[in-house]
Amino acid sequence: MDARSPFSRRKFVGGVAAAIGALSIRPEAELAAQAPVSGGVTQQFTGGEAEYDAFVKLASNENNYGPPPSVMKAMTDAFKYSNRYGYPDGNIIQVIADHHGVKRENVLLTAGSGEGLDVVATTYLRPGLKVLGVSPSYASVFQQASNVKADSIQIPLTKDYRQNISAMIEQTNRHAREIGFVYMCNPNNPTGAVVTAKEVKDLLDNIPKDMPVLVDEAYHHFVNDPAYGTAIPYVLEGRPVIVARTFSKIAALAAMRIGYSIAPAEMVREMNVYASNSVNVLAKWGAVASLKDKAAEADVKAKIVDMRDKTTKVLESYGYPVIPSQANFFMVSLGDRQVQGVIEEFRKMGILVGRPFPPLLNHLRVSVGTPEDMEKFMTAFKKIFPAKTAVTAARG
Amino acid sequence: MDARSPFSRRKFVGGVAAAIGALSIRPEAELAAQAPVSGGVTQQFTGGEAEYDAFVKLASNENNYGPPPSVMKAMTDAFKYSNRYGYPDGNIIQVIADHHGVKRENVLLTAGSGEGLDVVATTYLRPGLKVLGVSPSYASVFQQASNVKADSIQIPLTKDYRQNISAMIEQTNRHAREIGFVYMCNPNNPTGAVVTAKEVKDLLDNIPKDMPVLVDEAYHHFVNDPAYGTAIPYVLEGRPVIVARTFSKIAALAAMRIGYSIAPAEMVREMNVYASNSVNVLAKWGAVASLKDKAAEADVKAKIVDMRDKTTKVLESYGYPVIPSQANFFMVSLGDRQVQGVIEEFRKMGILVGRPFPPLLNHLRVSVGTPEDMEKFMTAFKKIFPAKTAVTAARG
Repeated sequence: MDARSPFSRRKFVGGVAAAIGALSIRPEAELAAQAPVSGGVTQQFTGGEAEYDAFVKLASNENNYGPPPSVMKAMTDAFKYSNRYGYPDGNIIQVIADHHGVKRENVLLTAGSGEGLDVVATTYLRPGLKVLGVSPSYASVFQQASNVKADSIQIPLTKDYRQNISAMIEQTNRHAREIGFVYMCNPNNPTGAVVTAKEVKDLLDNIPKDMPVLVDEAYHHFVNDPAYGTAIPYVLEGRPVIVARTFSKIAALAAMRIGYSIAPAEMVREMNVYASNSVNVLAKWGAVASLKDKAAEADVKAKIVDMRDKTTKVLESYGYPVIPSQANFFMVSLGDRQVQGVIEEFRKMGILVGRPFPPLLNHLRVSVGTPEDMEKFMTAFKKIFPAKTAVTAARG
Repeated sequence: MDARSPFSRRKFVGGVAAAIGALSIRPEAELAAQAPVSGGVTQQFTGGEAEYDAFVKLASNENNYGPPPSVMKAMTDAFKYSNRYGYPDGNIIQVIADHHGVKRENVLLTAGSGEGLDVVATTYLRPGLKVLGVSPSYASVFQQASNVKADSIQIPLTKDYRQNISAMIEQTNRHAREIGFVYMCNPNNPTGAVVTAKEVKDLLDNIPKDMPVLVDEAYHHFVNDPAYGTAIPYVLEGRPVIVARTFSKIAALAAMRIGYSIAPAEMVREMNVYASNSVNVLAKWGAVASLKDKAAEADVKAKIVDMRDKTTKVLESYGYPVIPSQANFFMVSLGDRQVQGVIEEFRKMGILVGRPFPPLLNHLRVSVGTPEDMEKFMTAFKKIFPAKTAVTAARG
């Protein structure tokens, strides 16, 4: 690829992301040689603004609609406090507590849910302890485990790309004394598959009662599957469950950095030691406005879910199966093509698509954008891939 | 005081702040019963916006001028990335590195310098270790030491309110094996007094060569004293020095949450494990613009320093000595009056002034605002305090 190309790959810093992608098959010692990373695992764009702005962005599960007018107004109004400490913050903690029917002391406000995930790992791991989860999943907690010189047990997905709950139960009980906490991303990233409410209950009922379980519900708001359910009620029951939520996805505030965890008060106190307690004022006011604007949330959810399902149908009728997704992204099977080269081809056509998620190296993760974004995606897809016999079952 | 008053004290959540104020005389066990806190130690206002907005704010060393137009424009323009990850960020790390003549790997970007201070404590303390510093000073590191079940050695100021460098050297060497790091706020908060460049060198030259030293230069930009100097050159020498800087003061971005530490690359890597790596996009672009707008920085510095010196002269001619300050705040002696009651009297008159800093309970910390702010302050001061014989020496 020509380095002068407006979409040159060399403008991306890929080292860390590449390391994350391969996390489950790299020994800890090799990972430790990398610079530690916390927060997200997204590549940092180091080129110019015009170059970045020109890309169709389907790589990072962002909400391409951006924040709605109500949220933009709340953020803009909050500029008057930009030079202040201890300003009125829209009672963000109380608003979140009321939203979920929990108490203030059950809420840990974080700079994105990514900070919350890191804080769980920092609080409940130490050298000699492990986090247990599935792979591929959102690898941030596995990376932070490595950062604090702890380790991870990563269980493969089932053949239909779902989280293997019985294996998670079996392995958690087998290694209970060395497991610091169990991690579950629901719906899972990168597959979009949900763990059902019954499966969540099965997991919690069949592992040690004092085992912390972190349920990352970053993509909660896009789910329509009636079998799915949030794990927040288990916090109210007093179980050692931490539910992470974010304003980065449905609320389109990824770069504003605000999210939260809901957990038993004692766990919030334990985790608060390692939390930055340092959330931007505009993010706080934007988040409050976002929780109040239920119409805008319903509207953007409907648009994204509709576009996800339409794109899925087009891809499957073109012969490329898609893993059933309940999130604002999906994984499409590339048949015998390796994903890394495909990512490059999309980039040359001005489209950013998801990074590799080993071992699913014949699948591509695509975030769901606007109708215009997805039309450009399908046009490019059809240039890169020939039509095949249409599939009817969504199994790659 | 009437709870219906627009300036009711009950609208402030004072528990944590009160605990911090009295930190140096409270046993660790009692502190541990408080909710952990990290980041700032400023009271959170829980009343309405109109009520808050009406106060003259001289309590938290904020920059009452707010961000200049160049910074506001940069932040507003960055809204286009509010829904993104990995967006162009103005090359904030490189800009900071270039600003100081260090390398990228010497820069740890944090959500305010407060996050940086917490991270130093989290990284270099553990149960059984202590941070050594003076008291009163900015108590955030002492609080985070307590949060991570470590402890602190707090050395009283000298009689002229300066940091006792010879005592710091003596105590550091005496307890070297149990000290995780040495903390110095320069200029010091709450006094505004500087540690001279020679004193900083004396300290570094006379303690163990591998002893981490955190120099908090939050108020660096207001200093005119030629005897003062930043500690950043010691980082370039490879000494284990961490210099914390913030955009909260001179750049007026306190609520946007952005600051950084300059340190040897290995220490940045160690600290990065505990950093959130989660800084708001508008804060990044605002900080870049702020570093570039040297005229705006010089202008606001001149205005604040001028108003500090004028107010000091008025107070001293009215009979109330002021501790010589090189920062955007000062401490005035209240004679035999206790500060807590005085704070209440100012609040009733619509003016927020600094919290108590024991053992200096006959001194009031006042942040320097605009000319209008300081006129209101002096009017209130003269209502609360009678004129006394003018002082010429600034010694309380």
